[in-house]
Amino acid sequence: MPAPIEFYFDFSSPYGYLASEKIEALAARHGREVSWHPVLLGVVFKQTGAMPLLQVPLKGEYSRRDMHRSARFHGVDRFRVPTKFPIPSQAAARVVLWSAQRDPALAARVVHALYRAYFVDDQDISSPEVAVAVAASCGLDAAEVRAAIEDPSIKEALKRANEQAIAKGVFGSPYIIIDGEPFWGLDRLDQVDRWMATGGW
Amino acid sequence: MPAPIEFYFDFSSPYGYLASEKIEALAARHGREVSWHPVLLGVVFKQTGAMPLLQVPLKGEYSRRDMHRSARFHGVDRFRVPTKFPIPSQAAARVVLWSAQRDPALAARVVHALYRAYFVDDQDISSPEVAVAVAASCGLDAAEVRAAIEDPSIKEALKRANEQAIAKGVFGSPYIIIDGEPFWGLDRLDQVDRWMATGGW
Repeated sequence: MPAPIEFYFDFSSPYGYLASEKIEALAARHGREVSWHPVLLGVVFKQTGAMPLLQVPLKGEYSRRDMHRSARFHGVDRFRVPTKFPIPSQAAARVVLWSAQRDPALAARVVHALYRAYFVDDQDISSPEVAVAVAASCGLDAAEVRAAIEDPSIKEALKRANEQAIAKGVFGSPYIIIDGEPFWGLDRLDQVDRWMATGGW
Repeated sequence: MPAPIEFYFDFSSPYGYLASEKIEALAARHGREVSWHPVLLGVVFKQTGAMPLLQVPLKGEYSRRDMHRSARFHGVDRFRVPTKFPIPSQAAARVVLWSAQRDPALAARVVHALYRAYFVDDQDISSPEVAVAVAASCGLDAAEVRAAIEDPSIKEALKRANEQAIAKGVFGSPYIIIDGEPFWGLDRLDQVDRWMATGGW
């Protein structure tokens, strides 16, 4: 079986959410699995000088329109820009890293549950309490998740994950790596598809 | 006949060049023509705080790779990143505005000739002499083109064109407007296609 697709994302990223709804079916069509890599774009943006998308003059207004149009274009029916946006996503990212240490399949379910809580149900997943409740809805033990969010080893794991992502060139969300080839953005899913089918061009 | 597609671009924009090679056939499939709008992204970037793409840490390296990959993906076989890149594109933009005042069809030919001179033949079209020679190859009178580049009314027309573009929300290249709906980037051509087919979704 070929290597999994590496899927880097920030829980505060709308295009990351939209791509998260598409990537597993896309990967499966080519016999691939997805490895989920939550990162903190705030850390990455210090490298690139980028600012939160909706705060950029002109581009911000366009992007708000484009997000909704792109959601419909890609057939993701359920999407809204949350009331609190963007958010710091440490708590959610740590929950995923901790889940992944226990069970990668469970971590994938937690990713979807957290993303949908934020971009569908408008829950503020930057709140540890909310993140814990969402994880508990996936069958995790609430007290264990609560402890994991404050666990120094999990905090350290997220720092390392960010550093490793930057070392691989990740500068945005979603950022997908297939056998070393990088693809940035929801709008590269067509190239991601062809790359898996052909091995490159 | 429906209204033309508005195609905003900077002559220094690789993705603008790639889209310029695709947009007319795409428009024609839906019974549309293309109106060409050269703008200066340097002016626009003062609004958005953006910097030249290849100078952005991480994103710059990715983009260089992505440009070549996207060129091949879209079937644009002839493309290189020019030796001198990016460039100020005033001279080329003024030649197009002046041509368009005389003959829109001629202006379209001049757009393609200038873009290909830069991104295929590695000619420095920021040089008025080079821009004049390219225009002359399209059948324009070299002395008239040379005068047009320094003509105060053409300089003023380009300033107005930039202001009008910013007023319409243009912040990047290519930027395509169809019946008021804006699409930014080569990677929105799939949405552009469907939008013309369906009138929106």
